[in-house]
This record gives sequence, C-alpha cells and structure tokens, in this order.
Amino acid sequence: MYYDEMKVGDSASFAKTITDTDIYNFAGVTGDFNPAHVNQVYAAATPFGGRIAHGMLCGSLFSTVFGTQMPGLGSIYVAQSLSFRAPVKPGDTITATVTVKELAEKGRVIFDTTATNQDGTVVITGEATLLPPRRPKAE
Amino acid sequence: MYYDEMKVGDSASFAKTITDTDIYNFAGVTGDFNPAHVNQVYAAATPFGGRIAHGMLCGSLFSTVFGTQMPGLGSIYVAQSLSFRAPVKPGDTITATVTVKELAEKGRVIFDTTATNQDGTVVITGEATLLPPRRPKAE
Repeated sequence: MYYDEMKVGDSASFAKTITDTDIYNFAGVTGDFNPAHVNQVYAAATPFGGRIAHGMLCGSLFSTVFGTQMPGLGSIYVAQSLSFRAPVKPGDTITATVTVKELAEKGRVIFDTTATNQDGTVVITGEATLLPPRRPKAE
Repeated sequence: MYYDEMKVGDSASFAKTITDTDIYNFAGVTGDFNPAHVNQVYAAATPFGGRIAHGMLCGSLFSTVFGTQMPGLGSIYVAQSLSFRAPVKPGDTITATVTVKELAEKGRVIFDTTATNQDGTVVITGEATLLPPRRPKAE
C-alpha cells in the first residue's frame, strides 16, 4: 500500500496460536534457551507457573502484518517499540493488530501496535514506524 | 545477576551468523513471508539487491543476551525499542551487545542495545528495560 492509500485509524491484524513448535524453533533460531522458555521443571517453580513464549516471538507478529498486509510489499521497517505486559503461554492464540496513528513527514507512517490473547488480555503494546513503498512516477 | 551486581557500562554480547535456515525458520514461526525475505527473484530487483533477514530476527538476539547472560535467569523483559538502521543479508555475522545505561528505580535496569555486522556497521540500535531477579531474603 502507498502512503496516500492509508488513513488514521486503518488497521490490519494477524492471529496465530503459539505452540511449543514455535517456541523451540524460535529458541533455535535466536539461541535464547532461557529455561523460562524451554525447561518445564524450572519454569513450573517461577511466578508464571510454567513455560512462557519469548516476548520477541510474539512481538515479531507485528512484522508479519507490516510485511504481508499493511503497508505490505516494498515497505521498509524503520523502528518498533515493545512493552511486554503479560506472559504468553504455549497454546495461547495471539492477535497482533497494527493501527495507523499518524501519517508523518518524509513519507513515514506511525502505527500503534497491540497484541492480545484469546481472553482479550493485552500482552504487548508499542509503536512502529514504517516507510511504505513509493508510488512509481507516471511515465 | 542481581540488580546490585551490575553497574553502568557493564556489557555482554552474543554473536551468530544469520543463515538461510534462520530466515526460513523465522518466516515459518512468525508467518512473515514477505518476499524480501523469501523470494530471491523478487528481492534481487529491490534496492537491497537480494533477500534480507527479518529485522525482528536480528533484534531478537538482544533477548538471547538478556535471557542467558545479563541479567540472565529469572529476569523479566519489560520493554525493548529497536531502530533498524541497515539491512542484514544471509551470511552476515551479527553481534548483539547490551550495555547497562542506568540503574533505574523500582529495581529496573535500562540497557543500550546495539547490533553490528562483521564489517562493524551498526544494523540495529535501541534500548531495553529489564527487571533482574530479586535477591532471596536472608533466612
């Protein structure tokens, strides 16, 4: 989508169930084998009562919305901030939603980014800056 | 590590070579199949001249340092901001470094987070907030 095709309040989202497969693959890709993510015996004794997904795994779902829906192809991911507000457990279904907050200068678009679980609990909040593709010049 | 074991300027890092395996596994975990990451024919025609890694993949290496080194076990990831400054290509070796910036109130620690490639080019900058584990009370 081009800059002039978006307006404040427009939103898009992507949802998926976070499984053990995701958590273990993410640990393998990143090297983050913190036992809170991959050791049930350890994790059962923590305040969370069991293993939790990596925060960055769930935060990466915003990238999915930006890269595949809005602005989609050709956009450049400039910045992302994330506040991790609640734990995500294996089996939770996370919906990542991005909403246009501001059509900023230099062709940039600012988005609110929010992730919620199946109960409506907000698990991540944040903000992102994207540079949508430039409209080709008329020939 | 406990709060009182860290001081401003302390740092830790983790480095890995980002391979196609990482990029494709990350796409599978997140659902971000933007062709800039997984379609060489498409990507060759973009300004980057070829496929690039997901920014969030490289940004997730900070989680690895926090979760496995400093503060390590028992710490809670409160927030992370990321500015994506340069593309990461398959085969690039990325070093993610976290440096204590401030011992803040309420037991929180603020870190500068920087990722560089094998040429020393800064690919990501940002800041993170961690809540290190609490020291057990004396019995």
